[in-house]
Amino acid sequence: MARKSGSHAEITGPRVRAAALRLFARQGYAAVSMRSLAAEVGVQAGALYAYTPDKQSLLFDLLKAHMDELLAAWAEAPKGADPLARLEAFTRFHIRFNLERADAVFISYMELRNLEPANFRAIEALRGSYEAELEAILQAGQDEGVFAVPDTKLATLALIAMLTGVTTWYREGGRLSRSDVGQIYWDMVRKAVGA
Amino acid sequence: MARKSGSHAEITGPRVRAAALRLFARQGYAAVSMRSLAAEVGVQAGALYAYTPDKQSLLFDLLKAHMDELLAAWAEAPKGADPLARLEAFTRFHIRFNLERADAVFISYMELRNLEPANFRAIEALRGSYEAELEAILQAGQDEGVFAVPDTKLATLALIAMLTGVTTWYREGGRLSRSDVGQIYWDMVRKAVGA
Repeated sequence: MARKSGSHAEITGPRVRAAALRLFARQGYAAVSMRSLAAEVGVQAGALYAYTPDKQSLLFDLLKAHMDELLAAWAEAPKGADPLARLEAFTRFHIRFNLERADAVFISYMELRNLEPANFRAIEALRGSYEAELEAILQAGQDEGVFAVPDTKLATLALIAMLTGVTTWYREGGRLSRSDVGQIYWDMVRKAVGA
Repeated sequence: MARKSGSHAEITGPRVRAAALRLFARQGYAAVSMRSLAAEVGVQAGALYAYTPDKQSLLFDLLKAHMDELLAAWAEAPKGADPLARLEAFTRFHIRFNLERADAVFISYMELRNLEPANFRAIEALRGSYEAELEAILQAGQDEGVFAVPDTKLATLALIAMLTGVTTWYREGGRLSRSDVGQIYWDMVRKAVGA
């Protein structure tokens, strides 16, 4: 029974998360009911509660999973040795990772306001960990005299906003490939830090 | 009577818009009903329909008013003569204007998906006009050989995302004044365009 129930959860879990991501991104967290979510998944509302206690847990899981994946993917990404190489790796990684997850990026920004305080703090801490990765690169470049950044904290926030912004306008099959975009943004990021 | 009705609309209009902005930003467009909006304004639902035909018109009015004000304020802003001075003026203007309207900036990004097609196109056209202002500055700097931008269109989108991002983290009374932030971002923008 435990085995069967586990398998069921393994199948349902990703479908519930994908449906929640889609509905939250399209309609907004507040407008989505557990009933409409169950309909989107194709199960009864009762079956949904077997997977998640409530909508808040689901939102938190989605935002946390996005940040956990981001941190894990960056930890595994090839980075190069010096600050300039690491900054280039970060730039290309951040654009690529987020372009593949535009819905998750959108709700990660938009639905922060709907997280309960403890959940908000947990997500903020994960965001802080990610920002710290970039800030460490900028600080290392400052220390080695290869970057000229007036404020590493603000440069971190400025660069992340600039790179994440690609998700709001990039369309597959347009005049530029993802790789073209990565190259053009890297040119701007490099110059922005004075390298 | 006409005079009285006009005065009434003049008083109610700004209150309705302010309440709609507040509720849309806090709960999201889809979750706000005309009834809850009327309660927020402190009028009967019927009185609200005397001001606006429906929620979609109200959302469109808010987003359009934000873009109209942005374009009008930029048209009137002191700009300087050469591309570098104009880019500095744009940078400081954009941060200042948007910091004063964080709720409007938030819903302008978040609620685009809830605009009906014709309304979406109208807002997109206004955004395009504003982006064209920055792109013209970048292009002039390219033509005069004072900027080195690999792609003026992408640089426009990148810089606007970077500058607008300030609204997501800036808190009044923190370690930096608005003017400090303007100065630090101007340093990064100037370098990013190779000037």
